[in-house]
Amino acid sequence: MNDTIKLLKSHRSIRKFEEREIPPELLIELIRTGQAAATSSHIQAYSIIHVTDKHLRDQLVELTGGQKYVARSSDFLVFCADMKRPLEAAKSTGENVVSGMTEQLLVATVDVSLVAQNIAIAAESEGLGICYIGGIRNNPQAVSELLSLPHHVYPVFGMCIGYPAQYPDIKPRLPVEAIVKKNRYSDDSEHVNAFNLTMHHYYQTRKGGNKVSDWSQSLAPRFNQKLRSHMQEFLIDKGFEMK
Amino acid sequence: MNDTIKLLKSHRSIRKFEEREIPPELLIELIRTGQAAATSSHIQAYSIIHVTDKHLRDQLVELTGGQKYVARSSDFLVFCADMKRPLEAAKSTGENVVSGMTEQLLVATVDVSLVAQNIAIAAESEGLGICYIGGIRNNPQAVSELLSLPHHVYPVFGMCIGYPAQYPDIKPRLPVEAIVKKNRYSDDSEHVNAFNLTMHHYYQTRKGGNKVSDWSQSLAPRFNQKLRSHMQEFLIDKGFEMK
Repeated sequence: MNDTIKLLKSHRSIRKFEEREIPPELLIELIRTGQAAATSSHIQAYSIIHVTDKHLRDQLVELTGGQKYVARSSDFLVFCADMKRPLEAAKSTGENVVSGMTEQLLVATVDVSLVAQNIAIAAESEGLGICYIGGIRNNPQAVSELLSLPHHVYPVFGMCIGYPAQYPDIKPRLPVEAIVKKNRYSDDSEHVNAFNLTMHHYYQTRKGGNKVSDWSQSLAPRFNQKLRSHMQEFLIDKGFEMK
Repeated sequence: MNDTIKLLKSHRSIRKFEEREIPPELLIELIRTGQAAATSSHIQAYSIIHVTDKHLRDQLVELTGGQKYVARSSDFLVFCADMKRPLEAAKSTGENVVSGMTEQLLVATVDVSLVAQNIAIAAESEGLGICYIGGIRNNPQAVSELLSLPHHVYPVFGMCIGYPAQYPDIKPRLPVEAIVKKNRYSDDSEHVNAFNLTMHHYYQTRKGGNKVSDWSQSLAPRFNQKLRSHMQEFLIDKGFEMK
């Protein structure tokens, strides 16, 4: 197992950080490294809002559901899918351009995810810890207003980055046999059952608070309600018309 | 610059591979490593179809627009956003579950992208090369039938993996100043103009075929048509109703 694979396997989300700033030139280097990720047809459909203003950080804590580390990590980045830049670039050549395709929503969402994951790994390789903040989609309209996000730009997730002040247990993952299917999709309920036992054990024995649950039970609250039901209307409003 | 950052920065898509197989246990180890990526609420909303059948590989060459390396790389993976597994897990607890939310489409698309990027990096750390195949969305319905993808599962992209038989130039990226915005979204057209000059020079001097173009010109064919206009209907049909 080489060092990079070791690093990748040691990922855990960090939610407690030292009161220590990341040198600004290191942060920029991490982002530049992130940009080396693959990008669909070189489109690079993303922008990153680096939120340094303390007042904005505090407001983002509220807008993401009270996650205090959004204000307490050394840095907070808002990763945006950005179709504005490529659309304008294409238009500048004299072409009539088409916007609002579902395909464009997918491309930009994948593009920004690949960059973010590269940044996460680069950060971890420098001894930093990160936490993705999907809660940025709790109030995407308010976040967009706060950060002046224009048409054809939407906030996909945030990321806290800083020096870790905790080392939580690494959370187990589904057996690889559940994830990988040979040539055709196949049933994996047997592996899910096994994983429920794994997670039951994990929740009982983990550091920092145990509970009685398993994987299926932990997912239930996520699916028994219309979570973030505003997203479609928000995206349409933002020019990701999804047609 | 540490070795992991060096590795990340050396990424280029590989489209020519040696005729040499990746040991099966290494491939599984790469995928297991990929699974360590962050996942929204532990949902792990992805499946990977490992296509080993030669006939299927040949058909996928056609369905992705004639990209021969889809058949010629040691391995070909089809990365699917998979909401079936978590929906069924949640349902098994006795809950009434909600499917088809746009939010779920986003979560699964991000989840599978993070895993894929981790696998890409793990592969490159072992001296392998990769190429993402967005062309899997050229004919997503036919791909779904070929690979028996069920409801609530959709193919997001493919990935060729193998031992590189080429080392193309590393493609420049937008200046980091265009990508990163401080506290609020801001105009970046000045940096885009500079990048057009960078790309003009790159296209004139790169190995393996030069041409007269720049970034904006290279994007025009992507936006002057309704590229993959079937995606919305396809996703609705697959149970990503986008509501």
